Amino acid sequence: MSNNRAATTQQSFPMKGGDGPHSYVNNSHLQREATDACRTMIEEAIAQKLDVKCFSSNPFRLADLGCSVGPNTFISMQHIVEAVERKYLEQGLKSQIPEFQVFFNDHVANDFNTLFASLPTERRYFACGVPGSFHGRLFPESSIHFMFSSHAIHWLSKVPEELLDKNSPAWNRGRIHYTSAPDEVSHAYAAQFDHDMEIFLSARAKELVVGGIIVLTMAALPNGIPASRIPSGVMFDLLGASLMDMTKAGLINEAQVDSFNLPVYAPSQEQMTDLVKRNGCFTIERMELVYRASKLVAPITGKECGMHLRAGMEGMIAKHFGSGIIDELFDTFSKKSVEFSHQLESSTREGAQLFAALRRK
Amino acid sequence: MSNNRAATTQQSFPMKGGDGPHSYVNNSHLQREATDACRTMIEEAIAQKLDVKCFSSNPFRLADLGCSVGPNTFISMQHIVEAVERKYLEQGLKSQIPEFQVFFNDHVANDFNTLFASLPTERRYFACGVPGSFHGRLFPESSIHFMFSSHAIHWLSKVPEELLDKNSPAWNRGRIHYTSAPDEVSHAYAAQFDHDMEIFLSARAKELVVGGIIVLTMAALPNGIPASRIPSGVMFDLLGASLMDMTKAGLINEAQVDSFNLPVYAPSQEQMTDLVKRNGCFTIERMELVYRASKLVAPITGKECGMHLRAGMEGMIAKHFGSGIIDELFDTFSKKSVEFSHQLESSTREGAQLFAALRRK
Repeated sequence: MSNNRAATTQQSFPMKGGDGPHSYVNNSHLQREATDACRTMIEEAIAQKLDVKCFSSNPFRLADLGCSVGPNTFISMQHIVEAVERKYLEQGLKSQIPEFQVFFNDHVANDFNTLFASLPTERRYFACGVPGSFHGRLFPESSIHFMFSSHAIHWLSKVPEELLDKNSPAWNRGRIHYTSAPDEVSHAYAAQFDHDMEIFLSARAKELVVGGIIVLTMAALPNGIPASRIPSGVMFDLLGASLMDMTKAGLINEAQVDSFNLPVYAPSQEQMTDLVKRNGCFTIERMELVYRASKLVAPITGKECGMHLRAGMEGMIAKHFGSGIIDELFDTFSKKSVEFSHQLESSTREGAQLFAALRRK
Repeated sequence: MSNNRAATTQQSFPMKGGDGPHSYVNNSHLQREATDACRTMIEEAIAQKLDVKCFSSNPFRLADLGCSVGPNTFISMQHIVEAVERKYLEQGLKSQIPEFQVFFNDHVANDFNTLFASLPTERRYFACGVPGSFHGRLFPESSIHFMFSSHAIHWLSKVPEELLDKNSPAWNRGRIHYTSAPDEVSHAYAAQFDHDMEIFLSARAKELVVGGIIVLTMAALPNGIPASRIPSGVMFDLLGASLMDMTKAGLINEAQVDSFNLPVYAPSQEQMTDLVKRNGCFTIERMELVYRASKLVAPITGKECGMHLRAGMEGMIAKHFGSGIIDELFDTFSKKSVEFSHQLESSTREGAQLFAALRRK
């Protein structure tokens, strides 16, 4: 399997496992909020674009790529199963409602034990865990009918190599992301994302049945807004600045910061559209930036940011800098996010998420 | 899913996870030896009884029920995949060799994180983990082509209730198993096994495609040998006696021993044959007690027994008696197994394992 060979060179950054105060389980409500916003769009994609009549096989197989440890994945899978059942009913196929099998996928290092222990007991599907990177094959050919990936494909398979090369114009000295960086750094990130997406889409094209649908929700750049003005961009800038403060205090050295870069990327709608078209295996059934119906969403607080970042990135940061700096780093980050709270509060959340429903040709 | 509802009342006793000195990973070579003995029989079942021409679908799906954490399961699955590939070649179907998908099943409490981390990187199959009890449904209807279960179905879904009832003739006072117990105790165990096997076989009959094969290897009673004269029987007697010694030393109380029973059962070949016939969904392609080709197998030592028992049963014992007694218990057991080494050495290993290959009608 090409996936398995590739896995050894890829980086893996699992969400924090278990159910402690800093765990992903207890700090994934920002993702949850985003999931809720997309629920209607997923239901519409199934109702309008999924032709279950063209599927001959029982069972109906679903996959969540980058599922982490729950509970968001269980909520999403439940909604999708219900929407597919409604579709069978609407198409007059009540007697043919299939059994469902759900494949929960994430990196090998994901805490599958926690995932399995928290599976809903009253679920209407057979559950499997699939360990491995979605930057490669995960399933047999034409074996999945509906795929979903929520807030996962912004993870790159690796940090672009030029960022670590002192002789490259993309050397990312003193920063940890392309936010507020020279264009060469952004271009290196974009090229890595292009490469990863081509591999991702080609693998999914093999795995999906003809007529099968993949729904992607992901961090994205709203039209005309720079990366430094979306919430994640502000957070990454503050995290980078926090690390640089710690170098000044002598707690870590500057070379460590220079060699650390977050392997995450938010594409524009235009870039994502181009990538799907270039791949050629899917029709774009829907692709749009997500705007919430209610404008009464509370602004993100600094504390919330810190908890959110920590749940998602503690493992990666600890691996590079050592676990000894974690508490100090997030203390510094917390103070900094109060100091720069106006930047967070005025950042553009609306449209900083992309919804895509693609149909296998 | 009936399985999920049942799961809450069933007992689950995972093998010891991780890779420490007492882990199952490092103490499963007795199972491994048994696996090797059955390898040829599995290959023969595939070569002679599996008609791959009758399978229309790609991929070929395999399941290992009660896989634990490896490495035995990886070795078995690799052999089975290779044997199926040979069968395609022999049937002149080289161009139709399918992709393989392997479902590794065990209880939710199994250490799937360790299992996934140790998956062979060069495997020729897509891997999934399936959490749940095999005393219930695990897979969609007609979705698996070959199933395997090695040394797992001797685990009962629960201890027979009569054993804990002071007013029942099957009350199992001062013992932890039916070995050396009155007939009523053995009968209660046998009835539980009958019940569990009917549920097991009915679930597998739903999940296997027509023509699909399930291979079972399991602890069994050799013809004409009492339970107290097979190695596991001797071990369980010594473990029970060790616990009773600890009650005399005041380390645990007698009521705790009275209420503890090992939920494992070794059927005779005759009993197993009857159960398969009564279920009615399978033809028996092969069913026999296993005798090793070489008679030069070293006798089991007391130390080996202790490590073996501990890897498999520490979790269950600790749950009932508290983890504080574990080291002391296995020290006592170790001394006792030296004292009674003649019983272990003269116990009947040959024929204490049953091989069954069943074909879905």
